[in-house]
Order: sequence, then C-alpha cells, then structure tokens
Amino acid sequence: MEERELLDRFIDVAAKVRREVPLVHSITNCVTVNDVANATLAVGGTPAMADNPEDVRDFVAIASCTNINMGKLDDQTIEAMVRAGKACNELGVALMVDPLAGGVSAYRNSAIDRMLSETSPTVIRGNLSEMAYVAGRSVSTRGVDVSEADAAAHDPVDIAVTVAREHGCISAVTGAVDVVSDGKTVVKVANGVPEMGRITGSGCMLDGVIGAFIGVADIGDPLDVLVATTGAICSMGLAGELALARLEKRNGRVGTGSFHIALIDELSLLDEDAYRAGAHLEVLQAD
Amino acid sequence: MEERELLDRFIDVAAKVRREVPLVHSITNCVTVNDVANATLAVGGTPAMADNPEDVRDFVAIASCTNINMGKLDDQTIEAMVRAGKACNELGVALMVDPLAGGVSAYRNSAIDRMLSETSPTVIRGNLSEMAYVAGRSVSTRGVDVSEADAAAHDPVDIAVTVAREHGCISAVTGAVDVVSDGKTVVKVANGVPEMGRITGSGCMLDGVIGAFIGVADIGDPLDVLVATTGAICSMGLAGELALARLEKRNGRVGTGSFHIALIDELSLLDEDAYRAGAHLEVLQAD
Amino acid sequence: MEERELLDRFIDVAAKVRREVPLVHSITNCVTVNDVANATLAVGGTPAMADNPEDVRDFVAIASCTNINMGKLDDQTIEAMVRAGKACNELGVALMVDPLAGGVSAYRNSAIDRMLSETSPTVIRGNLSEMAYVAGRSVSTRGVDVSEADAAAHDPVDIAVTVAREHGCISAVTGAVDVVSDGKTVVKVANGVPEMGRITGSGCMLDGVIGAFIGVADIGDPLDVLVATTGAICSMGLAGELALARLEKRNGRVGTGSFHIALIDELSLLDEDAYRAGAHLEVLQAD
Repeated sequence: MEERELLDRFIDVAAKVRREVPLVHSITNCVTVNDVANATLAVGGTPAMADNPEDVRDFVAIASCTNINMGKLDDQTIEAMVRAGKACNELGVALMVDPLAGGVSAYRNSAIDRMLSETSPTVIRGNLSEMAYVAGRSVSTRGVDVSEADAAAHDPVDIAVTVAREHGCISAVTGAVDVVSDGKTVVKVANGVPEMGRITGSGCMLDGVIGAFIGVADIGDPLDVLVATTGAICSMGLAGELALARLEKRNGRVGTGSFHIALIDELSLLDEDAYRAGAHLEVLQAD
Repeated sequence: MEERELLDRFIDVAAKVRREVPLVHSITNCVTVNDVANATLAVGGTPAMADNPEDVRDFVAIASCTNINMGKLDDQTIEAMVRAGKACNELGVALMVDPLAGGVSAYRNSAIDRMLSETSPTVIRGNLSEMAYVAGRSVSTRGVDVSEADAAAHDPVDIAVTVAREHGCISAVTGAVDVVSDGKTVVKVANGVPEMGRITGSGCMLDGVIGAFIGVADIGDPLDVLVATTGAICSMGLAGELALARLEKRNGRVGTGSFHIALIDELSLLDEDAYRAGAHLEVLQAD
Repeated sequence: MEERELLDRFIDVAAKVRREVPLVHSITNCVTVNDVANATLAVGGTPAMADNPEDVRDFVAIASCTNINMGKLDDQTIEAMVRAGKACNELGVALMVDPLAGGVSAYRNSAIDRMLSETSPTVIRGNLSEMAYVAGRSVSTRGVDVSEADAAAHDPVDIAVTVAREHGCISAVTGAVDVVSDGKTVVKVANGVPEMGRITGSGCMLDGVIGAFIGVADIGDPLDVLVATTGAICSMGLAGELALARLEKRNGRVGTGSFHIALIDELSLLDEDAYRAGAHLEVLQAD
C-alpha cells in the first residue's frame, strides 16, 4: 500500500464513522474518562463507559468496539476488562487495549499479562515503554511517561513489529513519530505537537478515537484495521497541530487549558481537506 | 397554570437558587461528575459528591437535594443510592433520580427497579428510552442514546404522564422537545440545540441543575416542583442556544470542546432577560 | 525571612519545577482528578493517579511527592492512602494531605484521624473548617464549604499555627487570605479572586500544584517546604487574578466555564514577571 492509498482509505473510514455513529464502549480511567467520551463524540462515535463485570457483556453486545484502557486498576475492574475482552472475541466486536503504565508495578504487569493472554485484541496501543513491556523487553518506565533509558534502549519500529507478530494484532507505538504495524507493513505518522504532552489525556482520547475508527472497520481484515488505526492516530495529531496553529501565543507559548479545549474542537471539525493538507505518512515494509 | 405564570414562577426559583445557594448532594457517574459539579455551581448551588454508603446519610442531612444518577453502577454504589434516597424521604429532602441507560442490562434494570420501589423520588428524569423503561414499557435502548425503535414506539407525553402517576412524582422526558408532568398538567419545553448531544454530560448536568432548582422548592407542593423542574430544563436548553449563538462557526459548525465550555458559561450568566426572551413553553392538560 | 527573600526563593522553586519535572503521585477524588492532573502539568510537573493499595508503594517509589486528597473515601482507598503515606515517610518522599470535608461525618473523620496518626505529612492543606477539625476544634462544616459559624469561631492564623505545631508539618489554611505556617513563621498570601469558588476544583488543583512545588524542595528543611508551599498557593491565586483580568465580562461577570479554562492557562503561563508584579505576601512571627 502506498501513502496515497492509505490516506484515501482512512478518509473514507473517517466519513464512515460520522455516518454510522459507532457505539464505543470504553472501560477506562476516571482521570480522563470525560475527555475520552468527548473525543469519541467529536469524531462521530457515541460513547458508553460501563465497567461493572456484571453487565459489561451487555454493553459489548450493543457496541461496535470495546476500548480498554488499563490506567486505573483494581480487582473488579480487571475482571470487567477480561470479561469484556472475551465477549468481544466471542461476538466479533473490535477490541482496543491500552496497557497504560505497563512495567510500573507487579500488580499492573500481571493484569496486563492476564488481559493479553486471555483475550485477542484487535489493536494494542501504548507509548514506547508500555509497548516494550508488552513485547517482553525489560523496561524502566516513569509512571505514564517514557523514561529516557527506554527511549535509548528500544526502537519503536522493532517494538511495533514484535507486538503485532506476537499478539496477532495491529500495534501502535505512539510518540513524537507514531508507528503502526500489522507485523509486515509499518506506517509512520509524523503528526502532532509537543503541547499534547502538556495536558493529560491525549493518549486516552486517542484510544477512544481508535475505538470509533476500528468500530467501523472489517476486523477480519488486518489491513483494514491498520488503515483505520492509522487514520485515528493521524486525526489526533492533526487536531493537535490545528489547535496549536489557531491559538494566540504569549511569548511563543499557548495556555494548556485552551489547548485542551481546542484539541477537542479540531477533532470535531476535521474534514477531508485537513487530512489531505496535513497528513504526514510513510509506509515501509518490516524486515 | 398559563405559560406566563409558569415563566414568572420559575424565574423566581432561579433567583432563589442564587440567593440561597442550596447544597446539592450528587451520587453520579465519574464520566461527567466534574461537569455536574460545575453546572450546579453555575446556576448558584453548591455541590457535594459523596457516594459511600457509610456516610451518604450525613450528606443528605446537610443537603437541600440529593441527585442520583444511575449511570455507573456497582453493588456498593447502588447501596449508597438506596440509602441516600431513603434518607431523603425520611428527612424531607428533595430526591432527583436519573435512571440512566435503563433497559440496557438486567443488572442495571434491577438496580433501577430497587431504587424506584424502595424510595419515592421527587423528580424522575431521563430520555425517552429510559423513561419508557420506568413506565414499564418494552424498550430497545442503545446505551445512553434513544434507539430509533423506541422513538417510533413511544410518545413522550404518554410516558411522562404514566411515570408521574405511577410513581407519584414529577417526571421529565427530555429530548428534542422536553416534556414535564405531574400526571395532570403537561409542560412542553422547546429549548435546546442538537449540539448538546455532541458532548457528553448534557443530561447529567441537567440533573444537577434540577437538583439546585428543586432544592429551593416546596417539595410538598407538586406544582412547585413542576415549576422548578421546568425552570431547570428551560435553563439548560437556553444555555445551549446562547452558547451556540455566540460561538464562531466553521462551515456552519462549532467545535464541541468550545461548545462544552460555552454551555457552562451561559448557564452561569443566565438572567431574567434571557428567560423572557428565549423560553419556549407550552402548558397542556393530560387526558 | 522577609517578604522579598520569600518571593525570590519561591520563584526559584517554580523554575526548578519546570526544569526537573517532578512526578506527582496523587490519590484524589474523581470529581476533579482531571483538573488536578492538568494543574500539575501546567506548572511543570507530571502526574500519576494510582490509588490501588496493591501498587501505590510502587508509585511512591518513583514519585517526588504523593498528594492525598481525602475527598472521596471508601475502605479500599483509605487503605491506599495510609499505605502511600507510610511509604512516603519511609522513602523520604514529600507527602501532601488535604483533609477534605473533615468534620462532615464520623466515617470521614475517622479516616482523617487514622491518616494523621499513622503518617507524617510534609504539608496539610484545607479550608478553615477542615483545618479547624484537624486542630481538634469543634466544627460545623457544610460539605466542601466553610460554614458561617466556623468562619466566626476560628482564626486562620491560630489554626494554621496549631496544626503545624501539633503535626510537625507545614500547614496551609486557604481562604480569601491564605495562611501558611511552620508553627513559628506565618505567611499570609492575599492573592486569588472569589470566582475561584464558583468552579469546582480550585482547592484540589492547588493540592497538585503544592505537590509539584514541594516535590522539588528539601523536605528535611521546614523553611524550604514553607517557601515551596507559599509559592504554590501564590501561583494559584495569581493565576485566578490573571484569568479574571483577561476574560470578557458581561454585566461585570465572567462565564464560569471560561474562567475554569483560563485559570489553567494562566497557571501554565506564569513567569517571574507575573510573580514580581502580583504576589501579595506578608510574613509574621507566631506568638
């Protein structure tokens, strides 16, 4: 697939999201749950945030995608996540998993290990530290941020390809340049701005957007999921760029409160012209 | 009651909220809890969000209203909701109940049934699917949204009147046109804009606003509660209209992040002139 | 210490926060958790919000400060708070405690008592009602607000000095004028605007900002912690003033949604000039 075809295809996916309004069922953390719901709505989906083991299956049954963000964990929520993941696999619903803060604690690692061994995600997305943990590498993360040691030790392309192959899914390692892979094809997305790291929730919102995009994809076709995931990641990056561009600067800087709001604005206003003018994509083949 | 009297009366209620600063105790979901607190503050109330069964009674005891939004449920929170509702009834505190996502799952339905059989709400508010569930009708909801099937099958006026009569409360079925009833009088409120459905939390915020308005009403007088509930619903709708009107459009659309913030702004700035210029009310008698 | 030296010193602390990016681990309430994370980021820290007893120790181990806001309590979270506090004391990590709504219920009071008897906070911050409760005085709070009775009965300076002496910590009683003390020196900070009370989260955000500031302080030196705490409090107040100043008014009032966002903007843009032009500090000695 060439860059041009990739772009054409995910522009179609973005339009399909607005047309079909997929229900994205998210089990996520309370820090950014409001942003995740609003980001899902902004791109055209509709959110439901049920996380009780007793009825997650009922929500999966009416959802187009279940998005599981492992940021805030307790025994009951882990049970809900695993049950929801299994229900997705059984019912053919797309499953997005974010192994947030993977590597930080034994409790957290064991929950992630359980999730990834008992369910088959459609997409796994995280930062370099988190995805290196999923790839089985030794990591030294610092909470929700990538540590300097991890940035030096791991190559995002290698990690993305490894996770995709080992878990039979689409993987996305997001950072300054985002890397998406199905284990064979590698897509690099060079959109986004550093200001996205100065607010909480950019990554969690992206999970909700990926949920909406893969919610309208054919999850039996890895290339279709790769396209949808790339489109979601590019959407988020472009929204960040457009938000930064339109805000007033003071000494060259923008206020982070306004940036947060403008980011959601731009997500909600993205159109074909914005994608065609701003997407920075590169398609490679893995070794 | 004529439309003009209704308007005069709820303008008085809105002013009383700002004067008396009622404490609205909300047990709500983590998705929109921040918005609920800020909406409560915007109209002049003050929020407290305690949801532990151990001390909800202590919060009810100092509150003017307890607002129970059944969006996020687990066994402990359901227990807190029921205890708080009983304490409201016992202590004469207004009780607002939102049967969110009623009809989606057996777990959720059983919690709503328990709440409505063990407590006597002052106001029950929901969308058409949720209120049809409360009215004992068969529903096919889609998460937090009204399904097309439900929109075709149920008449909001019939549902509002039925719920009010069966539960001896004020009922509100909110949607494109909102319907409020005490079982005899029916009020239609034609305020609001579709953009309110493109952000999460419009309904939950409304619950908090209703909580503030009925928190200063005489809950022994159904007409007073009907007036207060109508005033809260009209406030939310008007705030949405004013927010939409003042925001810059791009290709005719507003960014959803800015709309979210502007909605809270306008709630906080509503005054008598805005009500007189913009309220769209119709008063009917039920069959 | 004179006012000028205090100002010079906390300007250095503010710069150090931006340079060192301290990880602030917060166990806080779901109402304002997003704001706390964004406020922490705005001043230059980085947030992590883990609250599970199973792995709070792992988060303390990589944190510069743990910030414990006792707003939303249940048995598991109380256990997490106490464990995290003990880990802070053991590992030499700064510990910020906010006894939110202290005095409202027996359950809540017993949790606060346990926290303060089993751990040694570096800083305790609350409003006058809450801090009077911590000082062992009789209080009549009204949820999250100071009651009129408490405002009449208690002197903030007396309460601040008492808490600092009894708990061997830095205390901060925040209100129209904020009072910070180490038990000997008393600092009054006269920054801030009433609009901060018309949004939820001003106090919780301040906790996160204090967390970032004391996260780069020498917690073995009470004066250094006093300086950092004062700097954080002054930052929040100044941000409120600057936010109010730059927003458009309607009939002399600002919308509370925009004020909320502008407050975070101004926190993120604070610089030395703003501190020098706007800080209102007074240094006294306690009796």
